[in-house]
Amino acid sequence: MDKNLLDKLYRSFLREDIGRGDLTSEAIFPAAQTGRADIVAREPLIVAGARIIGGRVFRVQNPAIEIIDPLEDGTAVTAGDVLFSVQGPVVDLLKAERTALNLLQRISGIATFTARFVARVKDYPVRICDTRKTTPGLRVLEKYGVVVGGGANHRFNLTDGILIKDNHIAACGSITAAVERVRDRVPHTIRIEVETDTLEQVRECLACRVDIIMLDNMDPAMLREAVRVIDGKALVEASGGIVLDDLEAVAQTGVDIISIGALTHSAPACDIGMDWA
Amino acid sequence: MDKNLLDKLYRSFLREDIGRGDLTSEAIFPAAQTGRADIVAREPLIVAGARIIGGRVFRVQNPAIEIIDPLEDGTAVTAGDVLFSVQGPVVDLLKAERTALNLLQRISGIATFTARFVARVKDYPVRICDTRKTTPGLRVLEKYGVVVGGGANHRFNLTDGILIKDNHIAACGSITAAVERVRDRVPHTIRIEVETDTLEQVRECLACRVDIIMLDNMDPAMLREAVRVIDGKALVEASGGIVLDDLEAVAQTGVDIISIGALTHSAPACDIGMDWA
Amino acid sequence: MDKNLLDKLYRSFLREDIGRGDLTSEAIFPAAQTGRADIVAREPLIVAGARIIGGRVFRVQNPAIEIIDPLEDGTAVTAGDVLFSVQGPVVDLLKAERTALNLLQRISGIATFTARFVARVKDYPVRICDTRKTTPGLRVLEKYGVVVGGGANHRFNLTDGILIKDNHIAACGSITAAVERVRDRVPHTIRIEVETDTLEQVRECLACRVDIIMLDNMDPAMLREAVRVIDGKALVEASGGIVLDDLEAVAQTGVDIISIGALTHSAPACDIGMDWA
Amino acid sequence: MDKNLLDKLYRSFLREDIGRGDLTSEAIFPAAQTGRADIVAREPLIVAGARIIGGRVFRVQNPAIEIIDPLEDGTAVTAGDVLFSVQGPVVDLLKAERTALNLLQRISGIATFTARFVARVKDYPVRICDTRKTTPGLRVLEKYGVVVGGGANHRFNLTDGILIKDNHIAACGSITAAVERVRDRVPHTIRIEVETDTLEQVRECLACRVDIIMLDNMDPAMLREAVRVIDGKALVEASGGIVLDDLEAVAQTGVDIISIGALTHSAPACDIGMDWA
Amino acid sequence: MDKNLLDKLYRSFLREDIGRGDLTSEAIFPAAQTGRADIVAREPLIVAGARIIGGRVFRVQNPAIEIIDPLEDGTAVTAGDVLFSVQGPVVDLLKAERTALNLLQRISGIATFTARFVARVKDYPVRICDTRKTTPGLRVLEKYGVVVGGGANHRFNLTDGILIKDNHIAACGSITAAVERVRDRVPHTIRIEVETDTLEQVRECLACRVDIIMLDNMDPAMLREAVRVIDGKALVEASGGIVLDDLEAVAQTGVDIISIGALTHSAPACDIGMDWA
Amino acid sequence: MDKNLLDKLYRSFLREDIGRGDLTSEAIFPAAQTGRADIVAREPLIVAGARIIGGRVFRVQNPAIEIIDPLEDGTAVTAGDVLFSVQGPVVDLLKAERTALNLLQRISGIATFTARFVARVKDYPVRICDTRKTTPGLRVLEKYGVVVGGGANHRFNLTDGILIKDNHIAACGSITAAVERVRDRVPHTIRIEVETDTLEQVRECLACRVDIIMLDNMDPAMLREAVRVIDGKALVEASGGIVLDDLEAVAQTGVDIISIGALTHSAPACDIGMDWA
Repeated sequence: MDKNLLDKLYRSFLREDIGRGDLTSEAIFPAAQTGRADIVAREPLIVAGARIIGGRVFRVQNPAIEIIDPLEDGTAVTAGDVLFSVQGPVVDLLKAERTALNLLQRISGIATFTARFVARVKDYPVRICDTRKTTPGLRVLEKYGVVVGGGANHRFNLTDGILIKDNHIAACGSITAAVERVRDRVPHTIRIEVETDTLEQVRECLACRVDIIMLDNMDPAMLREAVRVIDGKALVEASGGIVLDDLEAVAQTGVDIISIGALTHSAPACDIGMDWA
Repeated sequence: MDKNLLDKLYRSFLREDIGRGDLTSEAIFPAAQTGRADIVAREPLIVAGARIIGGRVFRVQNPAIEIIDPLEDGTAVTAGDVLFSVQGPVVDLLKAERTALNLLQRISGIATFTARFVARVKDYPVRICDTRKTTPGLRVLEKYGVVVGGGANHRFNLTDGILIKDNHIAACGSITAAVERVRDRVPHTIRIEVETDTLEQVRECLACRVDIIMLDNMDPAMLREAVRVIDGKALVEASGGIVLDDLEAVAQTGVDIISIGALTHSAPACDIGMDWA
Repeated sequence: MDKNLLDKLYRSFLREDIGRGDLTSEAIFPAAQTGRADIVAREPLIVAGARIIGGRVFRVQNPAIEIIDPLEDGTAVTAGDVLFSVQGPVVDLLKAERTALNLLQRISGIATFTARFVARVKDYPVRICDTRKTTPGLRVLEKYGVVVGGGANHRFNLTDGILIKDNHIAACGSITAAVERVRDRVPHTIRIEVETDTLEQVRECLACRVDIIMLDNMDPAMLREAVRVIDGKALVEASGGIVLDDLEAVAQTGVDIISIGALTHSAPACDIGMDWA
Repeated sequence: MDKNLLDKLYRSFLREDIGRGDLTSEAIFPAAQTGRADIVAREPLIVAGARIIGGRVFRVQNPAIEIIDPLEDGTAVTAGDVLFSVQGPVVDLLKAERTALNLLQRISGIATFTARFVARVKDYPVRICDTRKTTPGLRVLEKYGVVVGGGANHRFNLTDGILIKDNHIAACGSITAAVERVRDRVPHTIRIEVETDTLEQVRECLACRVDIIMLDNMDPAMLREAVRVIDGKALVEASGGIVLDDLEAVAQTGVDIISIGALTHSAPACDIGMDWA
Repeated sequence: MDKNLLDKLYRSFLREDIGRGDLTSEAIFPAAQTGRADIVAREPLIVAGARIIGGRVFRVQNPAIEIIDPLEDGTAVTAGDVLFSVQGPVVDLLKAERTALNLLQRISGIATFTARFVARVKDYPVRICDTRKTTPGLRVLEKYGVVVGGGANHRFNLTDGILIKDNHIAACGSITAAVERVRDRVPHTIRIEVETDTLEQVRECLACRVDIIMLDNMDPAMLREAVRVIDGKALVEASGGIVLDDLEAVAQTGVDIISIGALTHSAPACDIGMDWA
Repeated sequence: MDKNLLDKLYRSFLREDIGRGDLTSEAIFPAAQTGRADIVAREPLIVAGARIIGGRVFRVQNPAIEIIDPLEDGTAVTAGDVLFSVQGPVVDLLKAERTALNLLQRISGIATFTARFVARVKDYPVRICDTRKTTPGLRVLEKYGVVVGGGANHRFNLTDGILIKDNHIAACGSITAAVERVRDRVPHTIRIEVETDTLEQVRECLACRVDIIMLDNMDPAMLREAVRVIDGKALVEASGGIVLDDLEAVAQTGVDIISIGALTHSAPACDIGMDWA
């Protein structure tokens, strides 16, 4: 992720929470008063972004704030552990607190949630990946949380990947017709992926040399059969409402990728707070 | 909410998901091809923003898209019900689909979740309200979801409300000192609120004529005692980790307001999809 | 006021005055040439923003410029007094000069003008406050000038205060109807204010427990009667074309707040200049 | 003035006054309720911007608002005259009201004030023009007000004109040196102007073929002598604290241009209001 | 390309050329005067963007301008042919003229230039594609011009493709090490490309299953040998200073893609003008 | 040129090329790895912007990058000469490389191309100047390249110069009518220029005291006659398709200015690269 892009995002988030100023803190504390605070986990979690999310939000608010001992991304902590400390003007610590915590809680929540999925299939050669079901405005951070949790990213947006879905196929007539129209227009650096519901569609994909075949909402038996039919001629992605307890059964079918919208749309936020040190 | 503000937000969300264009759809469909699709609930939910969130996102993408029969905010629907339909260029329907759904799922989720809290205390003269624990960038929409669900809003940001919290009190020495510094600076249109942990602090608040007293993390017995002490001389707000099953007990203590961070940070997203009509 | 917000404002003002560059100064002076200049009062005035307005504009133009000995806000100076000095690249001093002076002259003008009003009623327990009759784009700074001059701020914009005015009442039917519609929607942190022209309206306000009653364009006798009727059950604000010479008579009626549009829309600019040191 | 530029400005001004919405009006009025209002002069004034300032602000807020019978720029009206009427959603009329009035009052104020200066010298071949002493953020509109009042514009910013001032001369050594450095860099489409305090400086300007000579803070006798010396070889601009009552004496000296900072920094705002029709 | 993205770009370009307004045209023509003009080729060229570049620029300036009979992208025209006509307010036609022409000349120039390359290799199964050597700020349009001319696009930016170049390899130690680090991080939707200078490097790429092998600055003999070695196990891209007269020889080597920076950095602008109809 | 303006431009250019991050470099290099690279001319050229364009782009990407020994603008170098070196984090050097090179190549190309025109007429008192035929978005930089190459700038945009062209004259009726309408509206700091095709038009310009007469598409004989007729009563600018080999003949006619669109729309890009030091 590019730091300048993130800074711009953080500035807009701080503006949302601070408005024109912090009426309470600015009235109570002189501008020169400094302090030190700890950012503390209130429950077990996987840390994501101690430095480049939480810490950076404080520094965007005021570059005079110092970030102390940030934990590495992916560290597993328990309640009471300090993710990082901040030292600087009290007013700016209080102004940035809520925005930093709101982001950290959400992104560490995604990392923690993703890690549970990844752990379930750690013995299989399969990649757990995200979808476009992210919170508007936060996609770059939420997809970062997935990576910290051990997952991988699917395409970021409609420009940097080709995915021919059921709606495209329905309106276009056939997979073959859709793939043909796409093939000439897509950069050679990007693979063509097609969503399928039936083995017949899988075979049509193979016939027109699709690079990635998504198997949507198939049960393990059908997934296994599809993998057999594809036989290494395309990457295979399983998708569609796969929950934690189904995961190992899906992995055993031999698919290469399992994509899960819940990683970003349903990860519970972690509880993280700020205490004066 | 002001429409021009929302449009600006939607434009930035669409840009995030569309990037420079939709490689797949632009390759497959001629610009002139139009279609009609339904936005459909896949589970029971309370509708929030059929017109001004979901429908408006489509129209920001292309003003030529028509929004048909949007349900009123607050309508309770079941799986299969159509929230609204869209009619227009296929490419633009597909470009706006994910952003519209991602927003609708989240904000309707908040309305649906809030409604459960509100229902629990409908027989008590108490107001259920939100906090600043919202998703960065989405606060205006998430607080709208709370209202649709029957809840009320707390202050929007650090500028439009005064809330003296434990951190302020600790660093300032006493509630009295903090209130004094604030009183001269705050517009007369805004009330002063102070967070308290003990009855002693509650009494100090009364002594310096605080307008709203927040009772933080107190059990029902202590809340009831605090309400008795305050005796109508200030508004009373209960706060701090109150879950659905505690709600009625808290309401029975006689507090005026119960504020709940979970309304926005832990509401599950609803499942909503788009189908060609 | 939040520094990041101000910096953004100053950058846009500098861009307006500098355009793509300073044709004259860039042609005459080498980039490396530095100098020192004083910002000097050319008439008696109350200083507002030596550091965070005037000085900050220079530093936004070029962070290498040093601000020397800025006077505190609220200092009364006479012609010839130095508000602050600047030291740095000559080209940037000249580029920022006009913007810094234009702002300082206007905001110090407001502080100076406000201080005259405040002085007239210093023996009364009354608050002099501003309105929304500010210069578009400068509200945050103009309201700051009012505070420096000893005044107080009314609501900042249409979102952070409730004021039911004659136009609302006329179109809605009655004060009671309007207040009812508002009461459920307004955060509990914000007071409800209603504008009144008659004692009958004042009584209606009391009946529906309005928090602040604005008495619009009433003469001192009527104001006194209204204060008597209200009897401490609401804050009382006098408004409407009150000039300096009427002020004491209004204060004597016992109102809590006097709001004056002229503080911002008619304060004469102070004369301030820049001289090489 | 370019309409797209103005619209952008108006949008930012509306955002400042409206914030996230109009709490009061949105609570009271249904979105569908429409109304009609008149924008009315409360004192005699010269109209500036009935259509492209006041009316346009309403239409930027909501393009569904209709502007009815706007008076032409430069029309002299008296108290009670209607500048224009607006018809549309009541909520949007109330949201745009204050911004539209604040702008109209200020710009019509400048037109009205300028017209008084222009009237004093209408029998002399002299141009009354403005300076860069404008309100930050409003220069394009304030200079428009000057033109509506019969005045002319000086350079807009530091990029589109050359003006060598006393500060430049002091730091550079001599007028001649400064002019030489500038001459090669300035586009041939722009004239070179130099500020002078003495007749000796005027002669130096002539020697290096300056296009415009500004005579700063000279009394009428000295101005007349300078005009005699210049003898048509350069345009002559009188400047520096010239008040209304001095104006005719200055015009009689034969200068071509009189520039007056007060046109923009000291024009009193006109009183204009909005009434339901 | 997404229309909303383009409109934003065009607005910024129009602002650059128009500034605060068109002093000349606004002084000469009344706002109501309309006219019609033709956009005319002054030399043979391939049209790119008559509707979505040239025509759209006029409509962004003023939506009241009508675009008449725009030629399809890819049409070959000769001197005197009309690309499209515009009808609307004269002032806006003149304001948008230069920006529309400057863009059309450049992008049609790229299409025309690309078409010459494509024509040379039309009998070979090879794709002519562009690079990142585009004009800053215009990449989306310049890459569109390449497609109109019959070429294809390489990755758009550093985020949507993987290209391991000599600088990466040098600083990282080996191709194998670099590919390993990349493989886990890259979305499965994106291919991995590596730049090579030698056959040994080509073999290393094959050993670590690279998807695309770029052969940089190799002569036809070496290209042919590399193609033989690769033997269909990866896509093959030839790159590095390939000029028009070398093109067929390169195509004959059997590479899949030839990428050419000159398509965008050295395409001569076409001559296109505007005439009153 | 103002540095803050340029920084904003560079930020947007970097964003275009970097997107959300550099997938390749961020995967390969640890954030802490630093390096040093040289920016090297690959052919003879005139340097433009080593410090304020190329070097500054790197520093906008990351202020921790150090710029070492930048050559002065206007230096003539040969292949292999180092324009400047950069030292800093490897990832940021690679992220900024392409944008810095794309800009430097283009602007140095313009300086180099302009210098050839200027050299041809170095013995004549004539100024070579540019036009508005620049790349949209790059005008400020391209006009800078012209100055570095020894040329001069014409007006920057439609706001800071008056140029009455054939289209204006045709639609307005006559030069005299157009000049009259313009004269009252134009600031006295800006000259009035008129485009002419015939000697009759030249005489009409003189009659209405135009400041600059553009002679469009006239051959040397006609130019000479026009210069004779004008006889020093206006500046004379020759324009219209003048190529390098015609230049001296045009200069000999005695015109003051020769304006050449090709300086910006047809200057070949220079070849400049980056090598690890």
